Amino acid sequence: MAKTEKRTLRGGNMLNPAPVVMVTCGSTLDEYNIITIAWTGTVNSDPPMCSISIRPQRHSYEIIKREEEFVINLVNRKLASVADWCGVRSGKKYNKFVETGLTPVRATQVKAPMIEESPVNLECKVTQVIPLGSHDLFMAEIVAVHVNGKLFNPKTDAIDLQRADLVVYSHGHYYALGDKLGKFGFSVEKK
Amino acid sequence: MAKTEKRTLRGGNMLNPAPVVMVTCGSTLDEYNIITIAWTGTVNSDPPMCSISIRPQRHSYEIIKREEEFVINLVNRKLASVADWCGVRSGKKYNKFVETGLTPVRATQVKAPMIEESPVNLECKVTQVIPLGSHDLFMAEIVAVHVNGKLFNPKTDAIDLQRADLVVYSHGHYYALGDKLGKFGFSVEKK
Repeated sequence: MAKTEKRTLRGGNMLNPAPVVMVTCGSTLDEYNIITIAWTGTVNSDPPMCSISIRPQRHSYEIIKREEEFVINLVNRKLASVADWCGVRSGKKYNKFVETGLTPVRATQVKAPMIEESPVNLECKVTQVIPLGSHDLFMAEIVAVHVNGKLFNPKTDAIDLQRADLVVYSHGHYYALGDKLGKFGFSVEKK
Repeated sequence: MAKTEKRTLRGGNMLNPAPVVMVTCGSTLDEYNIITIAWTGTVNSDPPMCSISIRPQRHSYEIIKREEEFVINLVNRKLASVADWCGVRSGKKYNKFVETGLTPVRATQVKAPMIEESPVNLECKVTQVIPLGSHDLFMAEIVAVHVNGKLFNPKTDAIDLQRADLVVYSHGHYYALGDKLGKFGFSVEKK
């Protein structure tokens, strides 16, 4: 077997692109916070589960550890700048809902608020916390999902998530989604 | 606090976009396999760690469980179709390196092969396996990274990952990355 022609580096976080989401937490209006997270993803299909990784130093860490609940709010192009701001500023110093003007709305299964301006909200209940080093991994079951009515195809009533104009994060930069390259299974589809 | 105007659904996997990667595994030429995975992400910065979720029914599951090693191969636009194919076909029936023509090359820290055509490869050693239901979560330390020389900016010698033309997965569709919206921290940058 041949050797690679590539340049070899030590281990590092080069898994890209990544989702970028705003996580909301807290059980009272005073405590509500927003933290932007890229170390997140789906980890299980049935039951539906996701994970978020948080540094113990972050303001939201203690809140989520205590409440065992949070909401994942997807980020679209319009929200990219405010999501970035929530990622570089701390809830210790700022009331982020007040500063950003984002609208907190009531969730159905958790006390944490949802961001109404976000196209999709996922209510999550923590099932397990695993300390890994710099971050703790919070695994959670997704107990309810809220989807902006404009994202449904009016003819089929199916969710057309392309309408959400979601943002992705890759190696320190935010991007819109670009060319649609194919649907799952397109490589074996009969033309 | 107001109620949401959105449509409320039961819990589901609506965390989008997601990375889409080809995971390679196996310790001998006969056994080498490629499995395409979207339930993956970075979970820790220091040490650098990622996770992949795999159904126990999948051919790669037993291999990775036994070897406790795998490689994550990032997917660019050119590889989108072959990545899709590796996601819908099983290594039980196909030798995927032979069928796809992808080139296996030797890794430095693990026995699993790397895909030379992939712009970036991450060698991973499993640290923990957590059964979650439909999938098992494999957490792993990233022990080495290989980057195509063309991705380095010739002036600064820094990695410019935009040159990789990576692909992302969102709600059943593959997309190229589109408009660059900003760099991490752009919302607070002095103009």
